[in-house]
Formats: sequence, structure tokens, C-alpha cells
Amino acid sequence: MKSSMQVREIYTEYATCIDASLRSVFAAQGDLPMYKHLAYFMGFYDETLTPVTSYGGKRFRSAVSLMLADWYGEKESGMAVATSIELFHNFTLIHDDIVDEDTLRRGRPTVWKLFGADHAINSGDAQLILSLQVITNSAILSAEQKVAATAFLTRQYLKVVEGQHLDFTLTAASLGDSSVTKAAYITMVEKKTADLIAAAAMVSGVVSGQNDAECAALFAYGYNLGIAYQLCDDVVSIWGTQAQTGKRVQGDILEKKKTMPILHLFEKGNNATKQSLLELYTSDAHMTAADAQTVVTLLDEHEVYADMSIEIEKRAMVAKEAARTLSLQPDQIDTLLDIVDQLLPDIKKI
Amino acid sequence: MKSSMQVREIYTEYATCIDASLRSVFAAQGDLPMYKHLAYFMGFYDETLTPVTSYGGKRFRSAVSLMLADWYGEKESGMAVATSIELFHNFTLIHDDIVDEDTLRRGRPTVWKLFGADHAINSGDAQLILSLQVITNSAILSAEQKVAATAFLTRQYLKVVEGQHLDFTLTAASLGDSSVTKAAYITMVEKKTADLIAAAAMVSGVVSGQNDAECAALFAYGYNLGIAYQLCDDVVSIWGTQAQTGKRVQGDILEKKKTMPILHLFEKGNNATKQSLLELYTSDAHMTAADAQTVVTLLDEHEVYADMSIEIEKRAMVAKEAARTLSLQPDQIDTLLDIVDQLLPDIKKI
Repeated sequence: MKSSMQVREIYTEYATCIDASLRSVFAAQGDLPMYKHLAYFMGFYDETLTPVTSYGGKRFRSAVSLMLADWYGEKESGMAVATSIELFHNFTLIHDDIVDEDTLRRGRPTVWKLFGADHAINSGDAQLILSLQVITNSAILSAEQKVAATAFLTRQYLKVVEGQHLDFTLTAASLGDSSVTKAAYITMVEKKTADLIAAAAMVSGVVSGQNDAECAALFAYGYNLGIAYQLCDDVVSIWGTQAQTGKRVQGDILEKKKTMPILHLFEKGNNATKQSLLELYTSDAHMTAADAQTVVTLLDEHEVYADMSIEIEKRAMVAKEAARTLSLQPDQIDTLLDIVDQLLPDIKKI
Repeated sequence: MKSSMQVREIYTEYATCIDASLRSVFAAQGDLPMYKHLAYFMGFYDETLTPVTSYGGKRFRSAVSLMLADWYGEKESGMAVATSIELFHNFTLIHDDIVDEDTLRRGRPTVWKLFGADHAINSGDAQLILSLQVITNSAILSAEQKVAATAFLTRQYLKVVEGQHLDFTLTAASLGDSSVTKAAYITMVEKKTADLIAAAAMVSGVVSGQNDAECAALFAYGYNLGIAYQLCDDVVSIWGTQAQTGKRVQGDILEKKKTMPILHLFEKGNNATKQSLLELYTSDAHMTAADAQTVVTLLDEHEVYADMSIEIEKRAMVAKEAARTLSLQPDQIDTLLDIVDQLLPDIKKI
């Protein structure tokens, strides 16, 4: 197994290529501040729209996509589609930040906070168009490759938007409502998160002309990794320390988010437990720190942490099994397995 | 010259095809309310998301696009791109309504008003993706046609978003600021309005493989028609009656919009005129009906109405000249000329 450092080295090489590609996309658009809003969000400008290099995200999805394309001997072809994935992902964040009224991301003010919601909506729209234009305008891809990639990615991108829609719907509904179920939550996570990571992995197969079985395995790898990743996020937000999450401890509980551990507890618990949860989650009153502790106690009494760990481990195993079937070199497959282990926080340590 | 009724008949045939195409796009997306928000905006659902047929726009851009494709013998090929134009146009309206806080459009509540700004942002995003997916997924277009159309349309669509950006910038700047000029206003109108009508006309040439001169003439027709159309809108908002506009009389003045007549007056007027305008347009106070009348008096004293009419007539002439060079039947060219006359309100009658 590679160390975290070794995986990061492999990965950074591709993330650096993506950054160069993103920079050239923005540079080609001319001088309108609109494009600088987007380049700011990517870490290429500071808050005064002066060129800098600051942290603008890990480029995880696009780096994995480009790495896979490279392994299939199609790094050049993979560049446009990986860039598309990164542009699309960040477009969703720009719009999500407006809706969630989040003022900070990656330690910097969000686009709406800095330039206004009107500009954030509009500049985000531009980035969505760019995410598809970058494929169409590629000098490397054939017309057939462009159409295949665009057909696949627009389908996946729509699913991400559908996932956001389901997230709004689940958030608006009350705990106890018949629509608020573990199954509905997983469907939302599949669309909002897993379908984009799946797309990032599989599109490398689409542009390099892999057969259906290979493409399906790439998809399964990204998809299950994506679900495991989100479930870990849910777990860490409850049992993690601030050092692990960079967010406030028990943040999801204090915000009354109906994440997987809560829904699992609600479905698993007896009537008294359900009643306690309903009172805390459907009351108009703020969730206090003491209330949050009550929720954690209920979660622990019902061994929700252990159940979540099993579910996450299961998803991670499925992702790894899919990776093992790929027609890649053993060392490359090992890297894919290591990525699963290192992307998912070691929840046993929490 | 055809009567208004005759032109409408020709045009309605194509608008009906577009409606059928739009309905099939939404029907193919499944049952999520998200897609029903979009179908509602198009007039296919009522406010309770029950299927109806109500007014959801003229389909002007897409009907002209499809009509031209039909005349070039490529109606089938033209369908996907015309549908793209209509989806994109309505996507921009859904997002514009949020930013402008407009609660009504076509006499019905806007998407954000009915479903919330979060949904309006997100459902609008879905429609933007659909506007490009409809081309990629066409069963009629070849891969080369899809790439050519998508390359052309994404370029034009980005210009529309740039136009919205320039509109925000012009609106935020004060009259008298060096950035607030007639030239800047025209650039904004070109991008926000003219580039989409130009795209609607020219894309028919792109998919039917017309030569560069033919495509350029199609573009020039739509482009100049678009500018003339917006300038007419500016004129009617000042000198039109409520019966003509469906909006409140002198609405643009009361909202202190810095439209072309105001910018023209500001550039043409002497220092005293400039000063009067500056006081009215940069003051924190509301523009009263009496203030608005003062502005109209200044406009009339400086013959701004006549100057605007000349400018509109000039643009209409350029559009018509472009139409006359097209390799279409004389009767078809006549229809294009009649569309210019009938789209532009007869401002001499005002």
C-alpha cells in the first residue's frame, strides 16, 4: 500500500495539469469581471481580482479523471473532459453557496458574498456553459468523442442538479414525514455527490473508447466511493473533532440536518426514541448544545456509529472490487484502492 | 406585403412544432417537480403543477429559427437547435426574474415567486443543461452538425450571460459616470438581446451547411432586428400607452433605468440639461410622476424621440438589406421583411 504522501504525489501531478487547463479557459474569455469571479473562486485571483495562487480546491474529481485517461493512453483527450468536470463541480458550489447563504468556502469569501447574489447566479451560469463548451472546443477530441462525452456528462450533470432539488425537498420536509427516509436520503446523495464522481471516473473510459464492462466498472468505482465519502462526512460531522472537520463540532446536529445517522436512528429506534427525536427536530426552538448531546447519546445507545461504519466499509469494498476488475496495471489498481482508503477519513480513529 | 395575420399564420405553424418539441423534452425527464417548474414557466402546467395549456411566450426566436431551417430544406435538423434556443431563452428569464425580483411574467407568477429562489436557481440550471443536451441527443443531427451547432451556440449563449453582467454593471453605475455611455449601453444590448436573435437565425444556416456569406447575412438579420427591437422597447416604455406596453406608463423613467433615450439626451444636452438629469437620476429620492414629466419634456425638447426613430429605422433597414441577400425564395424573403415591420411596434403611431 502506498503512503498518503505517495498517493498525493501521483495525484498532484494531475491536479497541476488541471489548474493549467482551467487557467487557460478563463484567460481565453477576455477581461470581463464575470470571468474573474470564476477564476477567483478557483484560487487564481484574490478578493480584489488581482492574480494570485491560493487554495481553490483539491481538484479531486478532475485529477482522478485525468489520471485514469492517462493510464488508458489518452491523457490529451482526457484533459477537456476532466476540465469540464472541475468547471461543473465548482459551478454547483457557486450556486449552492447562494442558496445555503454560506459566506466562506476554503477559507475565502464566497462569490455571492463578495460580488452579490445577482453576479453569483450569472457568473455561475457562465461557468456551466464553459463546462460544456470546453469539450466542444477541444482541438484533440473527434466529433464522435465530443458527442459521446457530452451526452454522458449532460446526463450526469442533470442528475447532480436533480440531487440538489431532492436535497431542498428533504430539507424542507419534517422528520417523521413519510418522504423523509434513509432510501430518499441515499437517492439524494447518489445524485448530488456520487453521480459526479462516477462521471469523473467513467468519462475517461468514454473518451478512450473502453468497452461497456470497463466503463461500468469505472462508474461503480466512482459511484460507491462517492456515497462512502458522503456518509463519512455525515459521521465526522457528529463524532469528529473540529481539528478533523474544520467545522464546528456536531454542526449537522445543531443545524438539525437530517443526515444518514439521524435517519438511521429514527428508523431503528423505538417509539420513545422516535418521540425524542421528533421533539428536537421538529420544534421551532434552536437545538442547544445539551440537546445535541441528547441526540449523540441516543445515537450511541443505538450503535449508529457502528452501523454507519459497516455501511461505509461495504461501499468502500464495492468500489475496490470494481477497481480490481479494471484492465489497468496492478500498480495503477493499487493506487485506486489507496485513494479509497485515503479519501475516506479513518473513522475508526475518531 | 403580408398582413399581420398572414405573417402570424406562417409563424404559428412553427411555434406549434416548437411547443411539441419542448413538451417532449420535459416529458422525457420523469416526474421530479424540478422539471415541472420549467414546464410551468413554458405554459404547460398551472400553478399547482397540473397539466394545462396557457400562454408561455411567443416562441419568437425558436419559430424564426425553425422556419429558416425549413426553408433551407432542413426542418428536422433545425428542430433540435431551435428547441435549444427556446430552452436557453427561457432559462435566462427564470434567472433574470430572481435578480430583478419580478413576481409576474406573462401574467403568471414567476418561478422564484411560486417555488422559491433556491428552486428557481436550481431548476433554471437544469434547463440550461437541457438546452445543450437537446442538441447532443438529437437522433437527426450528425456528430459534425452537433459539434458545429454547439460550438456556435455556446459562444452566443456566453455572450448573453456577458450581456446580463454588463447590465448589472451599467445599472449599478451612476448616470454621469464615465462608464455609462451610449456605446456601453449598445454593447450590453448587443450581447443580452441581439446575439441570441442572431443565433436563432444563423444556427439554421449552420445545421443546413450554408456558406459563410449566407450565415453572416442570417446573423446580421437577427442581430440588427434584435437591437431595433430593444430600442423600440426603450421608446415605448417612455412614449407608449399602457395599452401598448402592458406595463405602467413611463415605467423605465420611474424606475430610473438608464436606457438609450436617457443616455442620448444626457450626451446631447447642454450643461443645464445634464445637471437636471443628474439631479433626478442620482438622487436618493424616488422619481415622482412630476419628475418623470420633467424628463419627458427634456427628451421632447431635444427631439430624442425623432433621433431614436432614425436609429431604429436604420437598424431595421440593415436587417432588411441582409435578408434581401439570402438565397431564399422571394416570398420567403418578403416574410422576413414583414417580420421586421411587425415585430417592431409602429412607433410613428405612438
